[in-house]
Amino acid sequence: MKPAVVLVSGGMDSAVVLAIARERGFACHALSVSYGQRHSAELVAAAELAKAMDVVHKTVVVDLRSIGGSALTADIAVPETPGQGIPITYVPARNTIMLSVALGWAEVLGADDLFCGVNAVDYSGYPDCRPEFIAAFARLANLATKAGVEGHRLQVHAPLIDLSKADIVREGLRLGVDFSRTVSCYQADAEGRACGRCDACRLRAEGFAGAGVVDPTRYVPMSGTPG
Amino acid sequence: MKPAVVLVSGGMDSAVVLAIARERGFACHALSVSYGQRHSAELVAAAELAKAMDVVHKTVVVDLRSIGGSALTADIAVPETPGQGIPITYVPARNTIMLSVALGWAEVLGADDLFCGVNAVDYSGYPDCRPEFIAAFARLANLATKAGVEGHRLQVHAPLIDLSKADIVREGLRLGVDFSRTVSCYQADAEGRACGRCDACRLRAEGFAGAGVVDPTRYVPMSGTPG
Repeated sequence: MKPAVVLVSGGMDSAVVLAIARERGFACHALSVSYGQRHSAELVAAAELAKAMDVVHKTVVVDLRSIGGSALTADIAVPETPGQGIPITYVPARNTIMLSVALGWAEVLGADDLFCGVNAVDYSGYPDCRPEFIAAFARLANLATKAGVEGHRLQVHAPLIDLSKADIVREGLRLGVDFSRTVSCYQADAEGRACGRCDACRLRAEGFAGAGVVDPTRYVPMSGTPG
Repeated sequence: MKPAVVLVSGGMDSAVVLAIARERGFACHALSVSYGQRHSAELVAAAELAKAMDVVHKTVVVDLRSIGGSALTADIAVPETPGQGIPITYVPARNTIMLSVALGWAEVLGADDLFCGVNAVDYSGYPDCRPEFIAAFARLANLATKAGVEGHRLQVHAPLIDLSKADIVREGLRLGVDFSRTVSCYQADAEGRACGRCDACRLRAEGFAGAGVVDPTRYVPMSGTPG
């Protein structure tokens, strides 16, 4: 089995990607990046997903909180109503940084394949989720590492890039992904319960609704109502 | 003054780059990456250099020791004689990762200019020091961030890329760089004293010899001889 590095955030998309990479016959190495996100519930979820799928998992620390500039890495509120343009939840250069770390681990492992869960259909409009970004990263990867010198090619797979969120749900169900283990919310609580109001919650809920299946997400009880 | 992010390792090359960026009129923001290198003397040197040049300085933690695969980030001896091919001191994807973090900080600052000290003449043969790598990273940077969406262009400057090490020494002296503050050695001791035997020490010594000036590097006393 060929090794591959799969970026796994703990959210639903990358869980589906992990299942896809496994189905394609790769020996998957799941990578999570602890970048200073608002909660660690998604990192716990990532570790549990990897364990449930019986794949190697590693979490690498990259302290983006020391740079800030995003509602996910600084003391800025997560918007709870959709806005215009690139939202403040965009983390500057996050996908470039995470793919770069994945590239480093791939090179150590001798893996020529990277997988990530970026999606350019039902997404928040982040620039680093577009197909041209992935193509440019793949080109860079082959110049940045031994691959180019040794004459083998690295590939960056983004199998969800053209799928709707509903399609991603369907693909995950086909592959037996346990969505109850995934945490999509930007501001989940320590138990992994979602806010139900942020953009990530909205996109997820619409995806499950579109696929016509029940989302197993657990929500934080609304304030003022009984838990 | 336009802001710029300058990668500063604590070694001689990036110290010269910082002086170049300052001479070009940028408001420099020096960035060091604590990636698990063998010693922290170079990070201390980077902070001191930035302070001496009166520029903002930040150190970001990226734990590449959790990935390993290099003599600089794993329990592998640093070679003390030149070998063939890409040496074991190559850190997989390091420059991609460091430029990515610089890119993130640049975006937070609203800076369109990144500077780094890569050199493709008197270097160790690392793939991520070549001009085609820098060009590919610049292309990626403009797709990865708001820049491409907002219609301004990021530039990645590598002003030393075509210079010999002797030329870099001369350029540094012209700009008043205090080379005594820089630490180039891969395995310097806690006081920043160099081993005198690794590839980084060899390239540095040849550069100063070529420029015909005295290298202020302090060396660890040879074992068996008085300090």
